[in-house]
Amino acid sequence: MNVLLLDVLDIHGTTAVIKNPAQIAHIKSVLQAKIGDRLKIARLDGNLGTGVLLSLDHQAILTDICLDKNPPDKLGVTLVLALPRPKVLRRLIMDMTAMGVNHIILVNSYRTDKSYWGSPMLARLDQFVIDGLQQGVDSVPPKISLAKRFKPFVQDELPSLIQKTAVVCHPYATQNFYEYSQTNGLPDLIVIGAEGGFIPYEIELLSSVGVSVVGLGQRILRTECAVSAVLGRYLL
Amino acid sequence: MNVLLLDVLDIHGTTAVIKNPAQIAHIKSVLQAKIGDRLKIARLDGNLGTGVLLSLDHQAILTDICLDKNPPDKLGVTLVLALPRPKVLRRLIMDMTAMGVNHIILVNSYRTDKSYWGSPMLARLDQFVIDGLQQGVDSVPPKISLAKRFKPFVQDELPSLIQKTAVVCHPYATQNFYEYSQTNGLPDLIVIGAEGGFIPYEIELLSSVGVSVVGLGQRILRTECAVSAVLGRYLL
Repeated sequence: MNVLLLDVLDIHGTTAVIKNPAQIAHIKSVLQAKIGDRLKIARLDGNLGTGVLLSLDHQAILTDICLDKNPPDKLGVTLVLALPRPKVLRRLIMDMTAMGVNHIILVNSYRTDKSYWGSPMLARLDQFVIDGLQQGVDSVPPKISLAKRFKPFVQDELPSLIQKTAVVCHPYATQNFYEYSQTNGLPDLIVIGAEGGFIPYEIELLSSVGVSVVGLGQRILRTECAVSAVLGRYLL
Repeated sequence: MNVLLLDVLDIHGTTAVIKNPAQIAHIKSVLQAKIGDRLKIARLDGNLGTGVLLSLDHQAILTDICLDKNPPDKLGVTLVLALPRPKVLRRLIMDMTAMGVNHIILVNSYRTDKSYWGSPMLARLDQFVIDGLQQGVDSVPPKISLAKRFKPFVQDELPSLIQKTAVVCHPYATQNFYEYSQTNGLPDLIVIGAEGGFIPYEIELLSSVGVSVVGLGQRILRTECAVSAVLGRYLL
């Protein structure tokens, strides 16, 4: 938690009230803040800045609120991800948010276990986004969409989401992401599979709507690792 | 598990025996292999190739072993990492191994909780390396070292580990990793902090032995995410 993200309703002029138990615990245990300390805060969908700790018990009162910094630029990337195992969903949403993805689309795929769509984790995406914003020191949530049917999504929706260029990362591609982006620039839409990757039919369907197939070198990476490795290219 | 890594002792001419319960479970449940199927295998510290499944019960017998592929090139990188929380250690070692780091050094730092050095996870590093090799389709383990004292390590050992250039990734750096590597090429030694990063004294000590301080953009990333984002630059 590198910034405390506050709801607009909890900010009143130059004063704010923090009631969120996780944030209170962070102020006490990690920051070990004392009365008078200046804490980093942000307003959800607004600016970043600081506030001075006025009182702290089961809630925290901040005063002298000054929100004078714009949130950081996003990466200009839409990331289409085959719905991963619920266990890794939190970290993936958190990292994609912290890194600055504009739009996250969780899509079905042949190798996505059907049970994943019934996971209670899917009801907690908003919380994972907040966790990611507080990690990455940002205040503007990415857009998140779910696409439960692969073929209609790819054929009917995906093409209009591509601004310039799109790639799907696939272990057995002939062209490398690096070579591709040297020639074409960094793509604005990236598709990444879940464990086991996409099946040939899915790769062909993506290709048919203009998505280029690229690899990430000779090695096969875990989904989390591949997502961070690719997005690392955008961090300037 | 994208390759089954076998010990040299389990390979006898063109026949091999797999007894490892995790590998047997993978062959049965994930691969759902049938007798006669050709499986991807590798010999630890040797070549990669295939073998044909001859029998499968509590152990698997492979025949027609052909190990004709060299392991993939490593990245040419030494990664010095402040010892992280035991919970994330497995994933970090696994990802660094899968991505092809040559030498992993786990180092103490001011913000490393002393209890981490007593974690039973540290006794399992070899297993995490095997997991990483089987993920990344490699057969050659990285070297792993532990450095329990930060200052002597940085002053006495680190300088001789730098072949050309070294960087420490630090959220509050003025120079960016991308700019740095445009000018100096990709560094062959990377230092990354644990949660909370390094304290100013540690950054100064690293600088004093020729390690450049670089950032990864405006955002602060989780250690796992930062490691993959940086190593992603090396995947050609």
